[in-house]
Amino acid sequence: MFKGYVQIYTGNGKGKTTAAIGLALRAAGSGMKVFIAQFLKKRKCSEHKALERLSDLITIKRYGEGFVKAHPERKHILAVRKGIEEVKKIINGGEYNLVILDEINLLPSLKLINVEEIIDIIKNKPKIVEIVLTGRYAPEELIQIADLVTEMKEIKHYYSKGIKARKGIEY
Amino acid sequence: MFKGYVQIYTGNGKGKTTAAIGLALRAAGSGMKVFIAQFLKKRKCSEHKALERLSDLITIKRYGEGFVKAHPERKHILAVRKGIEEVKKIINGGEYNLVILDEINLLPSLKLINVEEIIDIIKNKPKIVEIVLTGRYAPEELIQIADLVTEMKEIKHYYSKGIKARKGIEY
Repeated sequence: MFKGYVQIYTGNGKGKTTAAIGLALRAAGSGMKVFIAQFLKKRKCSEHKALERLSDLITIKRYGEGFVKAHPERKHILAVRKGIEEVKKIINGGEYNLVILDEINLLPSLKLINVEEIIDIIKNKPKIVEIVLTGRYAPEELIQIADLVTEMKEIKHYYSKGIKARKGIEY
Repeated sequence: MFKGYVQIYTGNGKGKTTAAIGLALRAAGSGMKVFIAQFLKKRKCSEHKALERLSDLITIKRYGEGFVKAHPERKHILAVRKGIEEVKKIINGGEYNLVILDEINLLPSLKLINVEEIIDIIKNKPKIVEIVLTGRYAPEELIQIADLVTEMKEIKHYYSKGIKARKGIEY
């Protein structure tokens, strides 16, 4: 029987969300059911359209109201709360083997959730569920309880050359 | 018109190939055509099966005879040669916007190709093609000419706990 662990993709480099999406594809290819919860992000990225072709295996939902500037607004808090409640049901529901919590690492520093609540979700997950957490600034407490942690480290980025985000590549 | 750059995913952490696959999905979702050339890998990973549903947009081909131990055998060299020749045609053919060269970073250190030949491919690529190179040990010469470089750095890995590679997650 599949035994799930906890993975974290963090760091300032490109590739965190795409690594999670690639993992979703790999898992779906092996017949697993995958749930992707995207926090913060409001607009659909291009990958949504491609994922529609795999909608029997991969479910993707956004719980975002856009990136938070200085302080979170009520709409941000409500969106995160909705997402967290749904994600808890999904993780404990028994239908999904891989649950991706995209950008969740950022939420504690934005005061959108207490890190303890994320720890609680992880510690109480069923054994057959793999959880993947992405986003910059993963809190040390999450890194400690994760089984696998990769830091995507920016060595060089074309943004610094003034190249703007491109549809199909960055979003 | 789409302007393509050169991305590298390297380092000892998990997430290089999956980041490239996730990028393929994103690009396909925006209508781009994607070619994925997998070097070294002989067996089909689970993602192949999921990618079949997107075969009108994403083509994936393997040019591998398994990982090289001490010295490359003739079969390894022939497989790489075949891949490189096909990839050159694909890059210059005008049909594909995103070309992923999976595990290519490793090939120079395995003496399967000269780094100059990879540089040559990159320098002569049409403007409308984005090239993504993955694999550990990206040679410094490639890092220098790339536009974006992310190092996937292993902070923690469950392999060190004795957990074996799992279908749907690692392959």
